[in-house]
Amino acid sequence: MVLERPVFQNISPLDHRYSLSEKEVFDGVSGWLSEDAAVRDCLKAEAALVAAHLHTRGRLTEAARRQLDEAAGSVSVEEVYREEEKTRHNIRALVNALKRKRPDEWKPLVHLGATSVDILDTSLAYRMKGVSAGVVLPLLRKLELLLCDFAEREAETPQAGRTHGQHAVPITLGFAMAEYVSRLGKSILEIERLASNLKGKLAGAVGAYNAVSMITADPCALERFYLAELGLEPSEHSTQLVEPEYLLRLLLEMNTAFGVIANLADDLRHLQRSEIAELREGFAGTQVGSSTMPQKRNPWNSEHVKSLWKAFMPRVITFYMDQISEHQRDLSNSASQRFIADYVCGFCLAVSRMSGVIESLHVDRERLLYNLSSGGGIQGGIMAEPAYILLAESGESEAHEVIRRMTLTAEKEGLSFADALRREGAVLRRIAGKMLGLGLIADEAEAPSFFENPARYSGLAVQKAKTIAAKYRSLMKRT
Amino acid sequence: MVLERPVFQNISPLDHRYSLSEKEVFDGVSGWLSEDAAVRDCLKAEAALVAAHLHTRGRLTEAARRQLDEAAGSVSVEEVYREEEKTRHNIRALVNALKRKRPDEWKPLVHLGATSVDILDTSLAYRMKGVSAGVVLPLLRKLELLLCDFAEREAETPQAGRTHGQHAVPITLGFAMAEYVSRLGKSILEIERLASNLKGKLAGAVGAYNAVSMITADPCALERFYLAELGLEPSEHSTQLVEPEYLLRLLLEMNTAFGVIANLADDLRHLQRSEIAELREGFAGTQVGSSTMPQKRNPWNSEHVKSLWKAFMPRVITFYMDQISEHQRDLSNSASQRFIADYVCGFCLAVSRMSGVIESLHVDRERLLYNLSSGGGIQGGIMAEPAYILLAESGESEAHEVIRRMTLTAEKEGLSFADALRREGAVLRRIAGKMLGLGLIADEAEAPSFFENPARYSGLAVQKAKTIAAKYRSLMKRT
Amino acid sequence: MVLERPVFQNISPLDHRYSLSEKEVFDGVSGWLSEDAAVRDCLKAEAALVAAHLHTRGRLTEAARRQLDEAAGSVSVEEVYREEEKTRHNIRALVNALKRKRPDEWKPLVHLGATSVDILDTSLAYRMKGVSAGVVLPLLRKLELLLCDFAEREAETPQAGRTHGQHAVPITLGFAMAEYVSRLGKSILEIERLASNLKGKLAGAVGAYNAVSMITADPCALERFYLAELGLEPSEHSTQLVEPEYLLRLLLEMNTAFGVIANLADDLRHLQRSEIAELREGFAGTQVGSSTMPQKRNPWNSEHVKSLWKAFMPRVITFYMDQISEHQRDLSNSASQRFIADYVCGFCLAVSRMSGVIESLHVDRERLLYNLSSGGGIQGGIMAEPAYILLAESGESEAHEVIRRMTLTAEKEGLSFADALRREGAVLRRIAGKMLGLGLIADEAEAPSFFENPARYSGLAVQKAKTIAAKYRSLMKRT
Amino acid sequence: MVLERPVFQNISPLDHRYSLSEKEVFDGVSGWLSEDAAVRDCLKAEAALVAAHLHTRGRLTEAARRQLDEAAGSVSVEEVYREEEKTRHNIRALVNALKRKRPDEWKPLVHLGATSVDILDTSLAYRMKGVSAGVVLPLLRKLELLLCDFAEREAETPQAGRTHGQHAVPITLGFAMAEYVSRLGKSILEIERLASNLKGKLAGAVGAYNAVSMITADPCALERFYLAELGLEPSEHSTQLVEPEYLLRLLLEMNTAFGVIANLADDLRHLQRSEIAELREGFAGTQVGSSTMPQKRNPWNSEHVKSLWKAFMPRVITFYMDQISEHQRDLSNSASQRFIADYVCGFCLAVSRMSGVIESLHVDRERLLYNLSSGGGIQGGIMAEPAYILLAESGESEAHEVIRRMTLTAEKEGLSFADALRREGAVLRRIAGKMLGLGLIADEAEAPSFFENPARYSGLAVQKAKTIAAKYRSLMKRT
Repeated sequence: MVLERPVFQNISPLDHRYSLSEKEVFDGVSGWLSEDAAVRDCLKAEAALVAAHLHTRGRLTEAARRQLDEAAGSVSVEEVYREEEKTRHNIRALVNALKRKRPDEWKPLVHLGATSVDILDTSLAYRMKGVSAGVVLPLLRKLELLLCDFAEREAETPQAGRTHGQHAVPITLGFAMAEYVSRLGKSILEIERLASNLKGKLAGAVGAYNAVSMITADPCALERFYLAELGLEPSEHSTQLVEPEYLLRLLLEMNTAFGVIANLADDLRHLQRSEIAELREGFAGTQVGSSTMPQKRNPWNSEHVKSLWKAFMPRVITFYMDQISEHQRDLSNSASQRFIADYVCGFCLAVSRMSGVIESLHVDRERLLYNLSSGGGIQGGIMAEPAYILLAESGESEAHEVIRRMTLTAEKEGLSFADALRREGAVLRRIAGKMLGLGLIADEAEAPSFFENPARYSGLAVQKAKTIAAKYRSLMKRT
Repeated sequence: MVLERPVFQNISPLDHRYSLSEKEVFDGVSGWLSEDAAVRDCLKAEAALVAAHLHTRGRLTEAARRQLDEAAGSVSVEEVYREEEKTRHNIRALVNALKRKRPDEWKPLVHLGATSVDILDTSLAYRMKGVSAGVVLPLLRKLELLLCDFAEREAETPQAGRTHGQHAVPITLGFAMAEYVSRLGKSILEIERLASNLKGKLAGAVGAYNAVSMITADPCALERFYLAELGLEPSEHSTQLVEPEYLLRLLLEMNTAFGVIANLADDLRHLQRSEIAELREGFAGTQVGSSTMPQKRNPWNSEHVKSLWKAFMPRVITFYMDQISEHQRDLSNSASQRFIADYVCGFCLAVSRMSGVIESLHVDRERLLYNLSSGGGIQGGIMAEPAYILLAESGESEAHEVIRRMTLTAEKEGLSFADALRREGAVLRRIAGKMLGLGLIADEAEAPSFFENPARYSGLAVQKAKTIAAKYRSLMKRT
Repeated sequence: MVLERPVFQNISPLDHRYSLSEKEVFDGVSGWLSEDAAVRDCLKAEAALVAAHLHTRGRLTEAARRQLDEAAGSVSVEEVYREEEKTRHNIRALVNALKRKRPDEWKPLVHLGATSVDILDTSLAYRMKGVSAGVVLPLLRKLELLLCDFAEREAETPQAGRTHGQHAVPITLGFAMAEYVSRLGKSILEIERLASNLKGKLAGAVGAYNAVSMITADPCALERFYLAELGLEPSEHSTQLVEPEYLLRLLLEMNTAFGVIANLADDLRHLQRSEIAELREGFAGTQVGSSTMPQKRNPWNSEHVKSLWKAFMPRVITFYMDQISEHQRDLSNSASQRFIADYVCGFCLAVSRMSGVIESLHVDRERLLYNLSSGGGIQGGIMAEPAYILLAESGESEAHEVIRRMTLTAEKEGLSFADALRREGAVLRRIAGKMLGLGLIADEAEAPSFFENPARYSGLAVQKAKTIAAKYRSLMKRT
Repeated sequence: MVLERPVFQNISPLDHRYSLSEKEVFDGVSGWLSEDAAVRDCLKAEAALVAAHLHTRGRLTEAARRQLDEAAGSVSVEEVYREEEKTRHNIRALVNALKRKRPDEWKPLVHLGATSVDILDTSLAYRMKGVSAGVVLPLLRKLELLLCDFAEREAETPQAGRTHGQHAVPITLGFAMAEYVSRLGKSILEIERLASNLKGKLAGAVGAYNAVSMITADPCALERFYLAELGLEPSEHSTQLVEPEYLLRLLLEMNTAFGVIANLADDLRHLQRSEIAELREGFAGTQVGSSTMPQKRNPWNSEHVKSLWKAFMPRVITFYMDQISEHQRDLSNSASQRFIADYVCGFCLAVSRMSGVIESLHVDRERLLYNLSSGGGIQGGIMAEPAYILLAESGESEAHEVIRRMTLTAEKEGLSFADALRREGAVLRRIAGKMLGLGLIADEAEAPSFFENPARYSGLAVQKAKTIAAKYRSLMKRT
């Protein structure tokens, strides 16, 4: 058995390229989801089972517990694999290896009453709970707090709101980011809830507690004790497997968070386009954008996040297919389920990369203002909506059509929207009257200048950005 | 415009074949999710908006409300479509059609301050909530209650538990069904929760309440009133769109329930195999199983359910892709989102069909017993586990290996497992001793007969079946 | 049975909204893939089978053929459905209905030796071949020719080439479109090949020609005759089903073409962004862009195409899952396969819509030039690459780094790239020397002006655009 | 940089568990698709580019070639990664590392005129072609030949044909396997074709040959020479990327082959069910089926193959999404494309595992015969079809209904089908008459015995099995 390997001979990018570029993420995930961790935690589960048996028999002392932990800790993954070459059954191999370490008196208790999956599914729940609490959620909370900072810092920075890639009406940059604070924040709370709700089992080969019923009069109490040792509770019903939906829902919610982050990545990519250029990812002085175009500064981190989403999002299909297991179980979820580790790692990579992007994101305030006033074909065209609203408010039921025609004229004649408005005295007067009433202006003559100043028309953008950022900052700190 | 069409000229099987074979499901879903329903509910939302404006102005009387409802109710989908041929914008068309029906004094209030999506996303939430409460959940609860009945009725019917398609240890048929009671039950509760949590909006073109801020000092109050008219609450943050995850999570959970049902379908299919034949779908006297093989009785309803799952499950990819909308929104979720109607219909068809299967499911108790004792190569081989457990309990640390070898011998020599055991006196004695201790037998000599009677080794199967059925029956009735 | 229904009560958008907005596409697809067409073509297959039996017996006259066609043509889909209420088996129902129309002497020949799928799979191949040749391919060829026209017309129109959303080096608009000519063109040729390669079968219930071997000494000859009547050949091996990969590959290739079109849609969407505005979709004078923002002109047709792709692309998962059918077949591909009709229709809608976009696409040549010279932060920064290349060619091995630093300086000081170059005499001289050698300039002093004129640096863009357009125009016309 | 790592700390099962259990597959794929291989082959491409430049200048000697190969071979992946820490651009890093190895005179030629993707996409095509020819296809051909052997060896072994999991009509085991020979065989031929059709490029940053046009008068000739060095041809059109469909189609076809193998795996799983037991996977003497049920022999290898399919099949969604790259390219296909390596490895693992299954597959001929005659509820019920066919042939137009009722009676009264037939003298006589005519029997009295001998009713099963096996064996050897 080859037990060490140059990382560059690995096949998955997770295990070579990304294990180096995102070392901390890799180490975090590997600490919970590598094969090393899997075997270690199966041993922990086997030890918990012996502890449960001892407890049932009134023999669980502190010393016994210590010995159990030591025995479990002293079996190496290599030993287990070597044994598996003989048994061709991974849990039987682990059990054999463990038995060799135990005092003779405990040997018969090792794995007693358990089917492999009592160990495997339980330890998977334990590890998924662990990786969620120890790696996934900290990464997510860090990102969420960075988004909160950004939303607050840029809460008042004017920006053109865009729909269909077209200028629509003004917002602020912080408001735009608050979208992601709100969406990602809720997803984080869901991930917390679902991760802490993962379940284990000790219900035996088909879930009916057949074997353990031969051992104890209260098999459910044995199961509860076993699982409690690992911080878990039992699945409501089991076949050979824990009900698959506990874990499925957690994975689906990770994928939901992934989608939110991918959306953010797309927004950032486009706001860095040459013609828009409102934002720019950090770029080291020595960094090369293109091997042949020396002027290039590419939004490659945002592109990377989007690309990871494309690689991992579709894997939910596998998660859904793994709901189906015939009768009390078939094994066709075994190999597929092992790749959950890849998924979690891919997701963490994206979260971490996005944090890096946000931390170093450069905001070009001048460009934001320039785009806001000039973009969209017609200078100030972004102010067509308030003109329509105010005109409608004044009682004009064809307001939309009146203003729409005005924008067509402005475009044809190269006028700014405010100037086009100035030429339509009757319309302007009705609008100005309404503005006076609303206290938007103090004098009718000021009306046109309002339409030259889009930042004045940003609704509750500032307030929303601040409220949402504050709320989620506090929710993230609480946990 | 062709406004009537022979159903057989439709393209989607939902609108031809399945609209006939499952008329009630079709009518139910169509009542909420057809284009007719969509336009009707957009009009309802527009009326709610005018009501909100009137309320803000202190002018919302009962008479006004009545007039509003009448006006909204009097616009037909055909009128809207005819208008759209001119505007090429569906909501503007609807607004124009509606304005024609309104007293002049209200005209300026129609759609005032709203962007199309304030109507569309709100009415989508309204309809998805409606179809969930009115169609999806009743169908699901009906199925769940049928599963509860079945689980209870067959709680004590012995069956071979199967893993990997191989006989494992005994269960009961009701216990096997309780799996689905438990899994589907939890999914139903989630669907209830998520459907009632759908959100609407009145935050305008980019979600910043720009337009409504020109109209009222408290745009959020206006939004709350508008949505309350439709039984909804506002999205925490909006762009042009409601946050997509409220709806996404509901759809993901429907797909989760779909997976549970598909798993059940697979189990039923296989239990109807010629060689297993423990169950049989109802089959009408005049029904033909095959156009060429007169003897065939196919599990075609279970196959149909599985097939629907294959057709609809992958559509979650679309749901996830629709999370991404650039900046304050692009329109690329518009067409794709329309097909949610197809998804919900496909899901309902599967639920309904499964209810039909369960209602008419024939249980062959003789065959169940026959399979339990004879299957798996070795007569009574399904009892190898308790022999191993009891032997291990007696202190034999190689118990698994001892019994494994015994099964190989039994197979080779064509012995039943009990007879093989009888030949190994020493082993048998240790086992029998343990059984005496557990009160499983009253006399050592009875030990072998235990191993000839697999139904005695079914753990908590009966109890679990009953408890779970009772719990979910009561949960279904509560709602 | 409800046999007519208002279109707005249908559930699938294909059967209501899109059946009206794209009537021709709908009618085309419905003519081949509706239930009406399915039943009609199953009857055609049944007639072909009787013809084959008559031929084998030497009794197939022209008169017999005519009578067969008439009989098949006289059975209505409604009759078949009414019969199915009794048989609960669709092909048996059809056979019964057909038998009623036949002269008594033929009755025993109807469906003789066939299993339902001999009719169903054969007629599906027939219809998929028909819809491909009659609807899909004409729509695709029309689009391809429009793309050819566009590529040729704009072959010399300068445009900024963009990578990562950043200006890279110059191309021409026609060259950019030639990408899609080339990619879509190859896909069209593949679709032609694969559609004409679909197969049928008459190999009976499990594919082993059991039944027909009771009827004729040469069952394969009977199969060939039957299929030839419908323009088809036999599957190399059959179970109850035709090998699924013939059809799978056609669907995968349609999805490939779909991806090409979706990519084009994305390009068009982004080139219509307010800040880029190089292209614009046609927009009717009375059309409304937004119900609240009168100035909006949205790229909604391109967005629609992208959205259809999101709705339909993931359905390949279903196609792949339908490869799996247990033993000689299970029915779990039956319902799912019916939705191929939806897929084909969705694909055709996208193709047709894209043709509409291209036909009416407005090119803003001024804006193209403006973006080319000013975009990317540094005026003329798009010309950094040729400076680097020429400098490297002159023997400078750090050329990339030299020019990269120059662009950083230019950006910091607000210089155009040409001016930054002018300041670096030594570098400029080396570059100019190289340009003289290449005949790009006649005098060293001209060198800087080359860098102010990006259109001069477009490589083979013009030539490529023309060659590819010409090639595929001719390939499209040939077929 | 950590450059060695214990395999058990890797995250992807490909790089830990499966790299050990399928060492040869892992090494084969790693040799082409690991990061080590990727860097090595990019260096090879860079060397080919210098060679092309030298050739254009008439300076490409054998000595120069040798020096180039040496230089390329002497750069290690570690050097490149260390350099990338500075440049943050992988190809620039590689170019820098390479330049250090080259004689000064060549330095300016290194990477000259190329954009990174000219190297990356070309080397990806080179590696995918290599891994296809060197690993994927040999594994596939080995499996195909094993299937051919099996089909031939079992060509005459009677088996019950099954549809819907129900006994249908007889086939032979070899015929059942010939299905997979035929389906997989065609897929192998497609993979050969598509792999050899992969393309590279040297068309520069946006595909218009901008840079190379500064260097040579015939850039296409330079591109052809460069690619020919690596055994490739140019993409018909390029942006920064090679047209994505060349590679997409290869991956789709691998997924098609994967589906065929998954189908086979499912068939094998079910044929190993306790109640069917016609086949059994090889099982080592020391192997343990279950950690708690000593009697278990699970079809775990077939389950494993199915499970891998579930893990990898859905990744086609990523492949399809990677068709879309904005304008002349965005980078969002970069990370996702790296996981193609995982996909190819997962596919190879499944192919290899399936070969192992077939090699050791035990056929239980007794059980096959037992199932054939007794299965399906009615003894000999599998012979209902020929009775119906023969009766119909005799001129009875209600033949299907007559026989169907007979099977219902037989079931109710516990008769064998032959006995039920014996009781219906009139029917039996008509059938027997027909059989005499066909030469199936020599005497009317023999007729019932035909119906007790299902193996006599297997159509062309034997012949088909042999013909198909022979055809594909010869096709596999040719390549």
